[in-house]
Amino acid sequence: MTATTYNPGKGEGSPVGVAILGLGTVGAEVLRLLGERAGDFERRVGGPVEVRAVAVRDKSKPRPGVDPDLLTDDAFSLVEREDIDVIVEVIGGIDYPRRVVLAALKAGKSVVTANKALVAACGAELSDAAESTGADLFFEAAVAAAIPVVGPLRRSLAGDQVNKVVGIVNGTTNFILDAMDATGADYDDMLAEATRLGYAEADPTADVEGHDAASKAAILSGLAFHTRVTADDVHCEGITGITAEDIAAAKAADCTIKLLATCERVKGEDGTEGISARVYPALIPRRHPLATVRESFNAVFVEADAAGRLMFYGRGAGGNPTASAVLGDLVAAGRNKVFGGRAPGDSTYANLPILDFGEVTTRYHIDLHVDDRVGVLADIARTFADEGISLRTVRQEGANPGARLVIITHSAKEDTLRGCIDALTDLDAVLSINSVIRIEGMDV
Amino acid sequence: MTATTYNPGKGEGSPVGVAILGLGTVGAEVLRLLGERAGDFERRVGGPVEVRAVAVRDKSKPRPGVDPDLLTDDAFSLVEREDIDVIVEVIGGIDYPRRVVLAALKAGKSVVTANKALVAACGAELSDAAESTGADLFFEAAVAAAIPVVGPLRRSLAGDQVNKVVGIVNGTTNFILDAMDATGADYDDMLAEATRLGYAEADPTADVEGHDAASKAAILSGLAFHTRVTADDVHCEGITGITAEDIAAAKAADCTIKLLATCERVKGEDGTEGISARVYPALIPRRHPLATVRESFNAVFVEADAAGRLMFYGRGAGGNPTASAVLGDLVAAGRNKVFGGRAPGDSTYANLPILDFGEVTTRYHIDLHVDDRVGVLADIARTFADEGISLRTVRQEGANPGARLVIITHSAKEDTLRGCIDALTDLDAVLSINSVIRIEGMDV
Repeated sequence: MTATTYNPGKGEGSPVGVAILGLGTVGAEVLRLLGERAGDFERRVGGPVEVRAVAVRDKSKPRPGVDPDLLTDDAFSLVEREDIDVIVEVIGGIDYPRRVVLAALKAGKSVVTANKALVAACGAELSDAAESTGADLFFEAAVAAAIPVVGPLRRSLAGDQVNKVVGIVNGTTNFILDAMDATGADYDDMLAEATRLGYAEADPTADVEGHDAASKAAILSGLAFHTRVTADDVHCEGITGITAEDIAAAKAADCTIKLLATCERVKGEDGTEGISARVYPALIPRRHPLATVRESFNAVFVEADAAGRLMFYGRGAGGNPTASAVLGDLVAAGRNKVFGGRAPGDSTYANLPILDFGEVTTRYHIDLHVDDRVGVLADIARTFADEGISLRTVRQEGANPGARLVIITHSAKEDTLRGCIDALTDLDAVLSINSVIRIEGMDV
Repeated sequence: MTATTYNPGKGEGSPVGVAILGLGTVGAEVLRLLGERAGDFERRVGGPVEVRAVAVRDKSKPRPGVDPDLLTDDAFSLVEREDIDVIVEVIGGIDYPRRVVLAALKAGKSVVTANKALVAACGAELSDAAESTGADLFFEAAVAAAIPVVGPLRRSLAGDQVNKVVGIVNGTTNFILDAMDATGADYDDMLAEATRLGYAEADPTADVEGHDAASKAAILSGLAFHTRVTADDVHCEGITGITAEDIAAAKAADCTIKLLATCERVKGEDGTEGISARVYPALIPRRHPLATVRESFNAVFVEADAAGRLMFYGRGAGGNPTASAVLGDLVAAGRNKVFGGRAPGDSTYANLPILDFGEVTTRYHIDLHVDDRVGVLADIARTFADEGISLRTVRQEGANPGARLVIITHSAKEDTLRGCIDALTDLDAVLSINSVIRIEGMDV
């Protein structure tokens, strides 16, 4: 959190000129609220907040209620304008907003963005640009919309050591998994339901494959551990392979399945610290606070040395909640333009190594289809023992033909587990491995 | 959130001199962590954070691990020292810390305090003093310890309109009520249990009578509604009158009883806005997120126009969590000393009127002992109807002699309800009014 340059401020009562890039759901809501609550914003910022331009792709599209004189299709021209102090980027995508935001920061404009993909992919480059001119770069809306997460990690917990962040940070997948849990239905049906209700986009890939959550995991890890983490550093698995049988097996273990973004500080065998950032569907016990997060809600669970366990909960998406987070950042950016000073910037001093995913330790829920004959369980238990993995519970059910074994292990490394799965596959008695799902949160 | 003066900053790498007032549990933890994590603090603040003095009442008391040269019993002398930039006040009480903190702020020292009573009672005076010199006044630890609440209300939600804040902000009373709910035991027994386990102080008055929660309600209301609210503005009732029968009746209504600090924006009949801040034990439905807050945990539920419903959850007391919040504030105060700028200060521009408690509208759970004869229910229902209060449910149970009536009303004003209770008392058929408890959160 260093800042070599800072803006001394324009002085109390000075207007703050704002340009909005993008006039989709969020941009339109930001524009509306800035107009309707102009008095509040002026008092909270210390000077009037004036929207001076709105960049859109197609100027000719009718936009009721929007002053046409504000519209431009040349976002880059805004970056040069003296009368614009803060740029709000709510376009989405990476390449185009990256170029505009970089140009804006280099021109000394503070930037508020809701773009998690951009921040996760290009955080270093953007921070360097902000650093070079003393501009602020804010992105509270990029993780869990209006749920304050970026601010608490960056500021409220700045005096603590964060050890773990576990979040349900994608509403689409939580809606689908919650609906599967509630109804017993299969993935495809609940994805269709989510699409019908507007919780899933026409192309749901970024959500259901975990990419959206991985961007957020990268941002959360970076903030929590003062280390540079990009989306590429995050091990990512989606929920498309989760079946109704998996959900039922989770229930039988008094668990539910959630897509978790897990960011963890890990101490290696040699005492050195590293971090792990990963996204995958996992079983969590129903008594865990994250298990109670229903529908499309989001929640972020934080464990810190002194603060202990905290949870932040709310709506993690949608035009209004995202606008709320953007506007909170805009007030902070505006205040700094008026009164001087800078928000804490990028903090990557700890520079902890990012662990190979194979080194990550969790528990596992393994669902096997096996021959139903004497000695099979002994063979399988021996295979786990040979790999050094202890079993916590084994549950056997009749199947036809054969039997079903549901095994919950104690903690083991991913690499070890993979070796064990290979060995199990080689056993004649193992007819198939139905699923291997990780378990989180059993210590809460 | 205005700031007429601000500190231009000492420049990156400059040390930040800190004095700690009070070396109890929190002060000792702050001192320890500043020592153990000096490297982290230096990187996060932008310069080394150096504890240069610790003020204690009794210098002669042995304090293992504390450099005796740091100790002084003259807190006022620290205020004058050029080498001290930030003062951490963790003494408690009002009169003495008020005088020291005022002197510090007037001398341009930034202050971090964990003292809710001080902030709730003297917030205006302290803010004015901070304003006069451009110093920062931080108090995240004053409400719910390490759970970020002050920061989110002041910063993250600065672009939104907060309509309601409902908090479980006192761990002692939540422990007692949760234990009563879990065991069916009576208040006195569970207070004794809380005392035995260290959750209640030897003199539990401030907790069980609701005064501690009322201070926090004042602070939360002020932040949420940009209005000056002191503890005296908060209607306050404690939990000492809650009986095992009340808890059992709440269970029968699928509710639990919590001591709630409720801060609400209310629109009057003439369209004018006002606010209500109140603390009392209330029934909340078991499905409400606050109902799941167990033991001594705290949680704060926020409803804002754009953000929707948010909840913040964690440990709301204790040396470590409080130290975490204090240190987060200290990093912010230190950064501003190094890099310049000020945190958002007091914001009271909205200056909304504080509603008389009689104007507050809630639902009520009323437990009556009545004669068991034909026509009694009709008489009682008529009494409610005459006062304009609609009934939601009436449950009748045998009692000996007579009968027990448990009534849940629809929303009514406190004044109206009081009139109704008086009228019920006058009915011959009403033998006694066992309890009247408010109900919150039925709309969630």
